[in-house]
Amino acid sequence: MKRTAFFISDGTGITAETLGQSLLAQFETTSFTKLTRPYIDSVEKARAMVLQINSAAEKDGVRPIIFDTIVNQEIRDVLAQSEGFMIDIFSTFLAPLEQELSSHSSYSVGKSHSIGHNSNYMERIEAVNFALDNDDGARTHYYDKADLILVGVSRCGKTPTCLYMAMQYGIRAANYPLTEDDMERLQLPAALKKHKDKLFGLTIDPDRLTAIRHERKPNSRYASFAQCEFEVREVENLFRRENIAFINSTHFSVEEISAKILVEKGVERRLK
Amino acid sequence: MKRTAFFISDGTGITAETLGQSLLAQFETTSFTKLTRPYIDSVEKARAMVLQINSAAEKDGVRPIIFDTIVNQEIRDVLAQSEGFMIDIFSTFLAPLEQELSSHSSYSVGKSHSIGHNSNYMERIEAVNFALDNDDGARTHYYDKADLILVGVSRCGKTPTCLYMAMQYGIRAANYPLTEDDMERLQLPAALKKHKDKLFGLTIDPDRLTAIRHERKPNSRYASFAQCEFEVREVENLFRRENIAFINSTHFSVEEISAKILVEKGVERRLK
Repeated sequence: MKRTAFFISDGTGITAETLGQSLLAQFETTSFTKLTRPYIDSVEKARAMVLQINSAAEKDGVRPIIFDTIVNQEIRDVLAQSEGFMIDIFSTFLAPLEQELSSHSSYSVGKSHSIGHNSNYMERIEAVNFALDNDDGARTHYYDKADLILVGVSRCGKTPTCLYMAMQYGIRAANYPLTEDDMERLQLPAALKKHKDKLFGLTIDPDRLTAIRHERKPNSRYASFAQCEFEVREVENLFRRENIAFINSTHFSVEEISAKILVEKGVERRLK
Repeated sequence: MKRTAFFISDGTGITAETLGQSLLAQFETTSFTKLTRPYIDSVEKARAMVLQINSAAEKDGVRPIIFDTIVNQEIRDVLAQSEGFMIDIFSTFLAPLEQELSSHSSYSVGKSHSIGHNSNYMERIEAVNFALDNDDGARTHYYDKADLILVGVSRCGKTPTCLYMAMQYGIRAANYPLTEDDMERLQLPAALKKHKDKLFGLTIDPDRLTAIRHERKPNSRYASFAQCEFEVREVENLFRRENIAFINSTHFSVEEISAKILVEKGVERRLK
């Protein structure tokens, strides 16, 4: 049986979506149709939502779950008239927080995701540009400005991880691909030796790597299992020899890999 | 007065951080020192957290606010002994959800951010690669595979927006820079005409654009206010002439711009 879950917000919907996803992930036996509905910031839009919610209830034969972060009482009252089961995220926590902080919530619409605003904006854009400009070993003479330098074989997930850390945390992360030359030399390239304290290794299961490389260069030696297995083995040996902390990206999401790297390296977020 | 807020999780900390940030954004009169502490997944780590929390309490002279998404009762009990004010996100909502879904939560540690896992992984990596391969008009012959094509002047925020939509939602977004030639021709490039239904415009205030371009090419004509103002005016005229929906990125975060674009274009997320 499929059940519909709505993530409803007067802003981007990221908070409702993130918390809703996390909570629903705890219920593995039920499968959900997940729908995010951002910018529900008027009574009219709320009335239209009620129709969507009720038709989902009819279709599923069971009432939808609603995760909302709406601050406006009038809008929430309209949603409350729907047939959905409301998990009212903000109203649940704002009252106790107001008491604890002995100040009143501004109840301002669309405030529900503060990351990325104002002073953060340039910081973040610069971090993304840094990741792009220093991707895949393209440039090594700015490593003194890097917070982190990810190293690993080609296509092990360095670029998405660097971009995620830039976007989410404003971290300046460069990445450098370890190629066969580096492996045969059995040592770190000079450009990396100088910044060893910033290095973090990514590794990956050879079969996953083979699949990813086939997407780029089908049936190439580069994408062969033998080659992938060789490169991964050699690079993991290099990490151990050089005492470079590393993580296997195969079974983790980009979020998990990034969070683990920041903990391991003790790097603090730049976005506040 | 500064007050410390801890976002504590047995996983990445993204859920605790996102909800905590959203709630604290509602209290503009208090300023917070925000600390995210992921992977607090053992009683030992929880005991170490208690020391951090209590020393922050002593330093601030007021008890810290704790947003936690920890599912393990034993670990939560340890944190509860700290001097912090606990906002216990999961325990608050799991009980009502269990009742409504008439099934038990798996209470599995580290489950608290499901986005980006398993089937989502390749989808997302492919979307990020698509954004990179089709960035800045580098390639136009794959636009039939694009979910969206962002257009606008150089440095108006197209690349970070495309990368964010790829990372967060698995959306395949290309972007194409409108240059003076396009403006003088007073028409859309042929490559874009064919896919007009996928186009979305980004614009930006000339003074912000001037600041951003100065970061890249200080004191160039490209970065001059006159040039920026000219390009922005011409491109906004082009958007209006061609009936291309557009948004001014100046006062919005990348999250907000992305969410508004998806709503406007009616594009659904690919990550579930």
